[in-house]
Amino acid sequence: MLRSCVFLLLLPICFFNTVSAGKVLAWPTDASHFLNLKIILEELAHKGHEVTLLAHSAIMIMGADNISSFKFENFSVPFPKEKNEKFLEEFLAFWIYDVPQMSYWKFYEETKKFVSEQLKTDKLVCDGVVKNELLLKKLKAEKFDVLVSDPLIPCGELIAELLGLPFVYSFRFSMGNSMERLCGQLPAPFSFVPGSMAELTDKLTFLERIKNMNFYIFQDILFHLIFGQFDAYFSEVLGRPTTLCEIMGKAEIWLIRTYWDFEYPRPLLPNFEFVGGLHCKPPKPLPEDMEKIAQSSGEHGIVVFSLGSMVKNLTDERSNVIASALSQLPQKVIWRYSGKRPATLGENTVLYDWIPQNDLLGHPKTKAFITHGGTNGIYEAIYHGVPMVGIPLFADQPDNIIHMKTKGMAVMLDINQMQSQDLLDAVNTVINDPSYKENAMRISQIHHDQPVKPLDRAVFWIEFVMRHKGAKHLRPASHDLTWYQYHCLDVIGFLLVCLLMVLFITIKIFSFCCRKCRPAKRKQKKH
Amino acid sequence: MLRSCVFLLLLPICFFNTVSAGKVLAWPTDASHFLNLKIILEELAHKGHEVTLLAHSAIMIMGADNISSFKFENFSVPFPKEKNEKFLEEFLAFWIYDVPQMSYWKFYEETKKFVSEQLKTDKLVCDGVVKNELLLKKLKAEKFDVLVSDPLIPCGELIAELLGLPFVYSFRFSMGNSMERLCGQLPAPFSFVPGSMAELTDKLTFLERIKNMNFYIFQDILFHLIFGQFDAYFSEVLGRPTTLCEIMGKAEIWLIRTYWDFEYPRPLLPNFEFVGGLHCKPPKPLPEDMEKIAQSSGEHGIVVFSLGSMVKNLTDERSNVIASALSQLPQKVIWRYSGKRPATLGENTVLYDWIPQNDLLGHPKTKAFITHGGTNGIYEAIYHGVPMVGIPLFADQPDNIIHMKTKGMAVMLDINQMQSQDLLDAVNTVINDPSYKENAMRISQIHHDQPVKPLDRAVFWIEFVMRHKGAKHLRPASHDLTWYQYHCLDVIGFLLVCLLMVLFITIKIFSFCCRKCRPAKRKQKKH
Repeated sequence: MLRSCVFLLLLPICFFNTVSAGKVLAWPTDASHFLNLKIILEELAHKGHEVTLLAHSAIMIMGADNISSFKFENFSVPFPKEKNEKFLEEFLAFWIYDVPQMSYWKFYEETKKFVSEQLKTDKLVCDGVVKNELLLKKLKAEKFDVLVSDPLIPCGELIAELLGLPFVYSFRFSMGNSMERLCGQLPAPFSFVPGSMAELTDKLTFLERIKNMNFYIFQDILFHLIFGQFDAYFSEVLGRPTTLCEIMGKAEIWLIRTYWDFEYPRPLLPNFEFVGGLHCKPPKPLPEDMEKIAQSSGEHGIVVFSLGSMVKNLTDERSNVIASALSQLPQKVIWRYSGKRPATLGENTVLYDWIPQNDLLGHPKTKAFITHGGTNGIYEAIYHGVPMVGIPLFADQPDNIIHMKTKGMAVMLDINQMQSQDLLDAVNTVINDPSYKENAMRISQIHHDQPVKPLDRAVFWIEFVMRHKGAKHLRPASHDLTWYQYHCLDVIGFLLVCLLMVLFITIKIFSFCCRKCRPAKRKQKKH
Repeated sequence: MLRSCVFLLLLPICFFNTVSAGKVLAWPTDASHFLNLKIILEELAHKGHEVTLLAHSAIMIMGADNISSFKFENFSVPFPKEKNEKFLEEFLAFWIYDVPQMSYWKFYEETKKFVSEQLKTDKLVCDGVVKNELLLKKLKAEKFDVLVSDPLIPCGELIAELLGLPFVYSFRFSMGNSMERLCGQLPAPFSFVPGSMAELTDKLTFLERIKNMNFYIFQDILFHLIFGQFDAYFSEVLGRPTTLCEIMGKAEIWLIRTYWDFEYPRPLLPNFEFVGGLHCKPPKPLPEDMEKIAQSSGEHGIVVFSLGSMVKNLTDERSNVIASALSQLPQKVIWRYSGKRPATLGENTVLYDWIPQNDLLGHPKTKAFITHGGTNGIYEAIYHGVPMVGIPLFADQPDNIIHMKTKGMAVMLDINQMQSQDLLDAVNTVINDPSYKENAMRISQIHHDQPVKPLDRAVFWIEFVMRHKGAKHLRPASHDLTWYQYHCLDVIGFLLVCLLMVLFITIKIFSFCCRKCRPAKRKQKKH
């Protein structure tokens, strides 16, 4: 045992190459998407690298402006922060209340409107760097080693291209994985890899496979229609004909913010690293009042409830349905909610504007987690092995909860349809049916049992790119193929034409021979 | 810097789960294939696990019978060791001298003969366990945690199935990767993933893509014709209808003995780990006589030459061509050769029956490595950053050398065609053109710069399977699909039929309307 420990201790000395302090440029995405990237950047700063954040004047919810370990390269954009916030609020309301009832086409029309508006904003933000010669010159002079970016909002890759920098993506997903597939060349056989947000599992019936294929095709069309608008912009900025996808395809490494505890097993590429849960940490002690609630909960324990950082409010009717259900639980409930206090709120339920979610989920008294199903929260529940009741609201949340439901550690409810009894039953089920806790612990063990921690893998590959000025040895040659070459359609077409020609010639020869033979026979008969 | 070190030292303590001593059963393949598996098993034994080797009475070149860290479970087979050795000799001669001139069809016919002979032997060996009730009972009573096997010779998976054990493969490759693709579900787009032994790179022209596709199809037919013979055998032993592929598909992890320093980047699966070079180690001091040769070589240094452990002999003509070339080198040459001493042997060349290859390649005086291109030797050259002259003989060796040539660290020669001048030029090129050394060092750095050493990753995943009784969370759902379902051919067919029906109905309605309209017009005209 001692020998094993010594061996394990020596391991990283032999194999982890250290990097002398380097310079990292980061292109952040706002809202909760930054939370993950922040952890990676903090770790890079902690390891001695100089991390510079490109931050525009209207950036939101970054939680990064108070981080002394980052340098900031600020630039202004011609719109106020409030415009961004208002847009996000409207977008959330659209997703939560309108999308569930929409047809594909209506969804496309409405999404296109929202996304076009967003893309206009994105281009204005991007202009702030790529059309700012002074800033570009300053950034060039800084001689960064790598750029780290979330590709959800295009621009990071364009800045990297302009500065001649290798870049690494930290990404959750694009709808239908269009970016990962079309630009990153990630293979996704339609037959068992459900498109992100298709709300399907990896066990597909015939009809589900039809749905999945249609979903992928629809998403790809959507991607071309919406993100295709960036092609001209990228071409204009770079002064040569190019596409968003071509530049995105130059990403050295894609750090995907999930892992096989959450994902269905699927084909991947050597430059895709699945680093889900990198933000999770062992719990810190709770604030005194929360610890008191936890300790007073007795054998029943506590339930933690949050709909995430982006949803502040619910309708009165919905909040009362929820509060009424919670009031009937034998557990104490800690609910992150900054909306109007519901009339039906029970004595066992305490509202907070903010909760230390990771610390609460890691508390031994915590029995269940009621969540909207954002990836960050789900990973905290996986990390600490807490079963979940998922009330997904928008974006990837329904899909996330379906993943957890398939793995047997969650029950899923519909925010618009559910009644108090449904929520009460769901919480009771995940707490009292032991299979949910068992599965949560099994998934948690899988999460913890990796050769290298997700955060260390993420940092390793960024440092790898810094050390080697890229990771070209991981880049598949498929980037140089057209889609029909990739699928060998030209080869299949050519072979089919050859086959048809051989068939045609054979038939011609055969019929020619037949014609030649028949008169001879007739002549013989005449004789 | 100190902080980084402390962090790195703490890393494995947090995340490497240790396994209490477990029991490992191993199904070895003989010849050089065992060399790699041996290293993994030794490491498992070193970590306190009890390793038991199933060894039949005619097993060859194992180099394992003197390893005290293994337990042996011996069983007898109804043929002598000499039969095995003679077969291997004939097979080698066929590959080296006959195959290069063969057509696909002739190759198929001859290979089928050899392989059928081999499979007959394999079944006899397998019988020694699976039809030996006493041995099976004994193995069952041992309560092993995992079986480790090289699938080149089927049987390990069958024993695992009989004993109800999870199993892990250690594998180099199958021809055209048929086993990995058809049984392991490894995706391989024909357009940029060259089939193993197709002697192609990942940059394929149109004609090469045709060649690659034909190669894959041909290999798959070959696989079904040859290995399909095991289907009935497996069904008979298990007492239910099954196939070799179905049982192979149950492998929890495939440890592939290459890495991205050697492989072209390609799609993979989460249960495929690329652990190439796991046998490489820092060099130990050379035996005194060899060290003397190295030191006496002056600034020119030494050249290491070996055609591997399986080739003992060359024709007089070939050995003289080689010796003559070597004699003209300014370097000293250490040649592993146990055949007749060539008449043209120079004073600078010393013959050895055996050489400590890894130690020689790691010696600072070593300038180049002349090799047959076996994966083990290639990885030692990669590990130590030594440029190569490849003289491939058979099996995967031409393919291996093409990989290294593409990476810019090798020159390739044809054993049957090359003249002394060619060999001389090749060695001079890789020594005097600095790009070869630079590329060798670049590839070597990529090899060394991994988050976890290959051997530790291999051991980690075997221990993972022991800890969790499998790794089902990494198993893609494609295992449950037929080939046409996998490729969505049923969905595409269905959608095409729907499309045709819509077209047909539209045309019918249109022509019906036309018919209805025309008489009306005529009637109007008549009025």
